[in-house]
Amino acid sequence: MTTISLAPIGVIHTGHLDPAQTPVHTRLNWGEAGEARLEPEFAPALDGLAEFTHLWLLTWLAGPGQPLGADVEMTPVPFLLRPTGETKGVLASRSPLRPNPIGLHLVRVSRVTLTPPVVHFLGVDMVDGTPLLDIKPWVGGFDSPAEPDAGSGWYERVGFEQKTPAGLADQSNETGGTAT
Amino acid sequence: MTTISLAPIGVIHTGHLDPAQTPVHTRLNWGEAGEARLEPEFAPALDGLAEFTHLWLLTWLAGPGQPLGADVEMTPVPFLLRPTGETKGVLASRSPLRPNPIGLHLVRVSRVTLTPPVVHFLGVDMVDGTPLLDIKPWVGGFDSPAEPDAGSGWYERVGFEQKTPAGLADQSNETGGTAT
Repeated sequence: MTTISLAPIGVIHTGHLDPAQTPVHTRLNWGEAGEARLEPEFAPALDGLAEFTHLWLLTWLAGPGQPLGADVEMTPVPFLLRPTGETKGVLASRSPLRPNPIGLHLVRVSRVTLTPPVVHFLGVDMVDGTPLLDIKPWVGGFDSPAEPDAGSGWYERVGFEQKTPAGLADQSNETGGTAT
Repeated sequence: MTTISLAPIGVIHTGHLDPAQTPVHTRLNWGEAGEARLEPEFAPALDGLAEFTHLWLLTWLAGPGQPLGADVEMTPVPFLLRPTGETKGVLASRSPLRPNPIGLHLVRVSRVTLTPPVVHFLGVDMVDGTPLLDIKPWVGGFDSPAEPDAGSGWYERVGFEQKTPAGLADQSNETGGTAT
């Protein structure tokens, strides 16, 4: 298939440099603040964003030399299953080591400035310097299942207490990145 | 900034060919069925996916010749605001005409087959042939705000009755694509 090219619209800044010490999801680290700093030309695109309480940040999670596409591990042990060693299809997990490693992060908006264009948010699971691809407002009518039987598969059976890769028992060969 | 290259992992198939006649979001068209057909090498990556009730499909929404990056309209009239003509920053909307037009679609899983690898789903807002970039399981603990004050900004003030671009009053110059 055709290759798609895209350019980051900005960069995420957080206090985390080591993926192994970075929480695996924003909701497991809801108190920490981060910043999405956009390129100046995107300032007008933030008009109206401050009236939303929550946002999706879409990021690029691949580090240097990380396998992509069909070269990724197809049935890894996800971070949160390290205590049992169970494998899952990578597309049935939120592992960052996926064919197209696009991160999807639900965060809380704290403040939006236009000069310079910066979105201050709460909820950090990104290492400092993560490329930002897109920002979308969270819309309840679009982004929440209306069905009362909505379930979360194997994620319902795991504990979320150990929130960093280093804190989880290392029973797999999965390394690097943050799980989103 | 560096350019990122990615390759679709499959293609979305739906009964819609005309963007103007395609519903603007999956939740406005929850009864219609579609298929995500993956390249054969990604079949093992679907292991375990069928135990989830809902998924995110991430797609590439750009049509031929569509502006990208800083060339997009930064303050368009979103589809759902055509009746009033109000503009919003493109990153404060779910417009498909955005700097990096990655679509984020919440769908209901109906059935997953591995040979060939196909995810059958309910909830269609994509035109036939849309490139598929990623599949992520919907996880309630990650993807829903826990705060009781979670709001949806200007989307709370618009009606969702007219669900296609053609059905909405055409008071803007926004054309093409589906709003996700």
